[in-house]
Amino acid sequence: MFELRDRDGLGRLGRLTTPHGAVTTPALLPVVNPNQMIIPPKEMAAKFGAQVVITNAYILHRSMRERAFAEGVHRILDFDGPVMTDSGAFQQHVYGGVEVSNEDIVAFQRDIGSDIGTSLDRFSEPGHGLETAARDVEETLARTRRGAEIRGAMLLAGTVQGALFPDLRRQCAEELSKIDLAVHAIGGVVPLMESYRFRDLVRVIVAAKQGLRPDRPVPMFGAGHRLVFGLAALLGCDLFDSASYHKYARDGRLMFADGTRHVEDLVEIPCECPACSAAKIEDLQTDERLRAEHNLYASFAELRRVRQAIADGRLWEHVERRCRAHPSLLEALRELRRHNEFLERYEPLSRRGGFFFTGPETQHRPILHRYRQRVQERYRSPRRHLVMFPEGMRPYATVHRGTIAKVLATHDVHFLVKSAWGPVPIELDEIHPIGQSLVPDTLDAETLEALEVFAQHFLRGAGYEKGVLWTGPECLAELPTNGPGAFDVASARLRAVADFQFGRGAADALFSGKIETVTSKTTGKVRNVSRDGAHILSVRAEDGFYTLKTEGARILHAAFGRPRLRVSVEPDTAEFNRQGKNVMARFVKECDPELRPRDECLVVDESDALVAVGRTVLNREEMLAFDRGVAVQVREGIPS
Amino acid sequence: MFELRDRDGLGRLGRLTTPHGAVTTPALLPVVNPNQMIIPPKEMAAKFGAQVVITNAYILHRSMRERAFAEGVHRILDFDGPVMTDSGAFQQHVYGGVEVSNEDIVAFQRDIGSDIGTSLDRFSEPGHGLETAARDVEETLARTRRGAEIRGAMLLAGTVQGALFPDLRRQCAEELSKIDLAVHAIGGVVPLMESYRFRDLVRVIVAAKQGLRPDRPVPMFGAGHRLVFGLAALLGCDLFDSASYHKYARDGRLMFADGTRHVEDLVEIPCECPACSAAKIEDLQTDERLRAEHNLYASFAELRRVRQAIADGRLWEHVERRCRAHPSLLEALRELRRHNEFLERYEPLSRRGGFFFTGPETQHRPILHRYRQRVQERYRSPRRHLVMFPEGMRPYATVHRGTIAKVLATHDVHFLVKSAWGPVPIELDEIHPIGQSLVPDTLDAETLEALEVFAQHFLRGAGYEKGVLWTGPECLAELPTNGPGAFDVASARLRAVADFQFGRGAADALFSGKIETVTSKTTGKVRNVSRDGAHILSVRAEDGFYTLKTEGARILHAAFGRPRLRVSVEPDTAEFNRQGKNVMARFVKECDPELRPRDECLVVDESDALVAVGRTVLNREEMLAFDRGVAVQVREGIPS
Repeated sequence: MFELRDRDGLGRLGRLTTPHGAVTTPALLPVVNPNQMIIPPKEMAAKFGAQVVITNAYILHRSMRERAFAEGVHRILDFDGPVMTDSGAFQQHVYGGVEVSNEDIVAFQRDIGSDIGTSLDRFSEPGHGLETAARDVEETLARTRRGAEIRGAMLLAGTVQGALFPDLRRQCAEELSKIDLAVHAIGGVVPLMESYRFRDLVRVIVAAKQGLRPDRPVPMFGAGHRLVFGLAALLGCDLFDSASYHKYARDGRLMFADGTRHVEDLVEIPCECPACSAAKIEDLQTDERLRAEHNLYASFAELRRVRQAIADGRLWEHVERRCRAHPSLLEALRELRRHNEFLERYEPLSRRGGFFFTGPETQHRPILHRYRQRVQERYRSPRRHLVMFPEGMRPYATVHRGTIAKVLATHDVHFLVKSAWGPVPIELDEIHPIGQSLVPDTLDAETLEALEVFAQHFLRGAGYEKGVLWTGPECLAELPTNGPGAFDVASARLRAVADFQFGRGAADALFSGKIETVTSKTTGKVRNVSRDGAHILSVRAEDGFYTLKTEGARILHAAFGRPRLRVSVEPDTAEFNRQGKNVMARFVKECDPELRPRDECLVVDESDALVAVGRTVLNREEMLAFDRGVAVQVREGIPS
Repeated sequence: MFELRDRDGLGRLGRLTTPHGAVTTPALLPVVNPNQMIIPPKEMAAKFGAQVVITNAYILHRSMRERAFAEGVHRILDFDGPVMTDSGAFQQHVYGGVEVSNEDIVAFQRDIGSDIGTSLDRFSEPGHGLETAARDVEETLARTRRGAEIRGAMLLAGTVQGALFPDLRRQCAEELSKIDLAVHAIGGVVPLMESYRFRDLVRVIVAAKQGLRPDRPVPMFGAGHRLVFGLAALLGCDLFDSASYHKYARDGRLMFADGTRHVEDLVEIPCECPACSAAKIEDLQTDERLRAEHNLYASFAELRRVRQAIADGRLWEHVERRCRAHPSLLEALRELRRHNEFLERYEPLSRRGGFFFTGPETQHRPILHRYRQRVQERYRSPRRHLVMFPEGMRPYATVHRGTIAKVLATHDVHFLVKSAWGPVPIELDEIHPIGQSLVPDTLDAETLEALEVFAQHFLRGAGYEKGVLWTGPECLAELPTNGPGAFDVASARLRAVADFQFGRGAADALFSGKIETVTSKTTGKVRNVSRDGAHILSVRAEDGFYTLKTEGARILHAAFGRPRLRVSVEPDTAEFNRQGKNVMARFVKECDPELRPRDECLVVDESDALVAVGRTVLNREEMLAFDRGVAVQVREGIPS
């Protein structure tokens, strides 16, 4: 049903297959009111690029039940693409109750041919106390289980409830994951969005995602304002549905990237969409449909921006920028750091292109959380004395290169920069995201304070005998000359990156023997590494990490026991991987929990024989959950 | 020629009149290459809303001189709107020299009917040393003076040069201001933009603006990327010209709000402009003109966003958001605080709508710089003991109201919040921007640190005998009960706002006598204040400041001597102001240098007789410079 194509953060470019066609996610489902189609679904698709729409089965059930049975929902909407239906749960929230049972509304959705139906969950209000919320969850689960029994061929969505209680939300999600469902919605969040409680929204989404199996797409019910698309996508929401385009239009309001404006407040039309480009302000003031068109153009374009940002590996930057639109969104952004342990597990090893500082929140991104953990746990300095650059900014600006080489040759010292992201030993200054970073020259106090804390923390564990701040050559006076042996940054880099990427001990394993390197003529950087004549590693220019060759994989396989770096596959399929074919998720039996998306990995069979070497697409949780798609892109198969 | 219609920061919505029509500024002038018009000017106007175009007189001079003399530039471009011409100065930068003299090219522009011509200034490279740069300036000034002599009826632009030397830039600007010119360009900045030296760009613009007379529009030559429109407009640049839309299109690149992307990197079209909405990615990949159209749609829409932001009074927020697109822009944003003394003089008393925190840079906005200055210089606490709320966030959340009233009644204490913006005494929590602020609950360390510094600084000067942090009612134990007299926040507010707005002593002057207030039934807040039966002040709901009535104006006029709060007008026109007509800038003789845009002011004649009361549109520098437009909106004329 659902396949993951690309990713960034918890955000994913996916493909959801339905009986009426496939949908690229994240997707926006405009809400179509069957009684009042201001813009018909066919036009939604042709003009705005809508791939799927959502309509309310409860309204159909009340106002045109017989016709719906007779014609089906697709004919009523005059739309042959995918149609999702909602069950009336939101109407419970608005009106306090609905006049239909869960069984009736699920059966109704099934019988009118909905592609994705929804069981009638119990809307859990943010104000609900623990007991009420627990009952909401219990009732929602019971109804969803019953819905799954009678859903027929219809894909069914089960909704995570649990008010503002993270444990309850997670438990609800875990239980829902066991039910035969296709989609997991996050419910009860409209009141949070309406009152700008975006920090609570983040907590609710993260708790739900922690409990949900990762192979099912996640709609965020009622998320219709473009302001939240990026943030919700970053946290792994895949579908957004909303009537906002129409509701706002009715109230004379237009959605923009920085918020909503009433059309009466415009002196200019601050938009380039086709509706606005052809209009005068007076047209927008008098024409509700034109306003709805603007809101749709703006919403779908924002969704495309989010998808492009995922493909670019720049979703974090996109969200950090969007969250400046309102202080409550900034609050939500600042909340994310509290969930780094979870977020980091889904964060790819590296991303494409530059890595931009956008504000004090940037240093708390999961990728930097990981960097600081690894530099503490996996890095060991080859020398016992330290010279530290206090710039706090850029790792090793070019101006230092010559000086550094000279000092390393004459003194028994090592170099470290207190960068904006934390301490950076000189050997790690080319790996992602350190080497791809762009940071302002002057940093804010929060970043400066944090980098000082990170540096002190690192230094306490690093065991240097003596360290000085670089103030010029005179600072070397107190430090020993004539190091214990030749020190070459390029060789030290090979070792440090290996330990950082594969874990402590990798360097010792890989670099015993006769090591030779091939260096790029244009950049002067190492490109290939061979041991005793065999090519074991390549260094990727784009992120400074290694690509593992078969001979390198054999070394790590021998050096590290199970489950380290391994993806184990079903015996039947191992032979295909030996021939160089990718590892499909459905054939993965186990996976090293420390592997991250885009990590180099060893593909092994049941008996731990090495069958291939490749690069992960998914992390362990995902490999074990997904039935579709590629888990490991195999680079080299290893014939037996 | 140029009239100021609305403003925010140094940004201005203006109207520039030329022989071929008027232009609303800030405006974008697409560069049209007469030899290769990818999109003809007529289409520029019809499709994208271009009001004015720019073409290069040097190219015309070289490639079609005779035709240009015969037909004129408007016929060659087939455009009957305003046309500006550049002189070849940029070609000097690119090619090291040009084959035309200043006199020839100015006369040529005049003779081909250019609306706005440019003298051939000496392009001052960022790398020029002080001596070279001084010679650049000297030569530029000499050429501009000569150009002004022969310009005929053509409007002439003189360009500020001076490399990266602020004093030189300012001196050049001051000298140019004395020449008979219509427009002042900022030159030599393209290399700064090309190398993302936006901090230097800010320094150059500010230095130039400090020297330029404010009544002439300021083009920033070569500013064609939408990334910088907001920042440059905020600093008072009015015209942007660029060939970027076409250059980027030729290189396969598209401009977006967060930077430029190559069309080969797109998996989606992250844009809603008409060119993109109708296109597939392949169309954008193959069609250069389509890319140019996108770049124009995007650029003109960004200009409209900037103009709308000025009208909304939200240009600072707009710029703070846009500057997250690149760390070098963020660096530029962080530079602005160094120029607050200058920026504050142009900052209106208040703005419309909410005031949003977007990051640690927000607290350095000029309006907050002014707030902190005034609270130290103009505010005096009515009590000697202090209770401080340490939240650091929102002034006086509703929850405290009851408690505060009770404590004020029983104890001889006063209340202060350490807000994100600095110390806020309870009487000032409704004035702009304090009362209009939206701030996240959790603040970054830079903001927290700064607010602590501001609070300590304030406390040192405030002379409280004793102060405690609010930890609950128990913190009052050490403080004296039974204050020296009744204390009523509403009355104290009247006094504090008067001193803050008009200067120390205003409250003493205004509130001696029998004071009565009219309170809004809906908000419970004071709306009108009368003294001895005469209405002297109204309180504006939108910003918490006073509107001055005639009787209030008489009191302040008597209490404060010249030039305080005064705008002096020519004797001939005072009579019109007495009848309630607005004060036009050209009739202003003097103005209190402490008056800011949108300040309440006293309009007086030469003998200092009060002729009207109103609200300024301009500050002193502007009133004395502008020949057009309104200087003071008169609310009440005062018959003699």
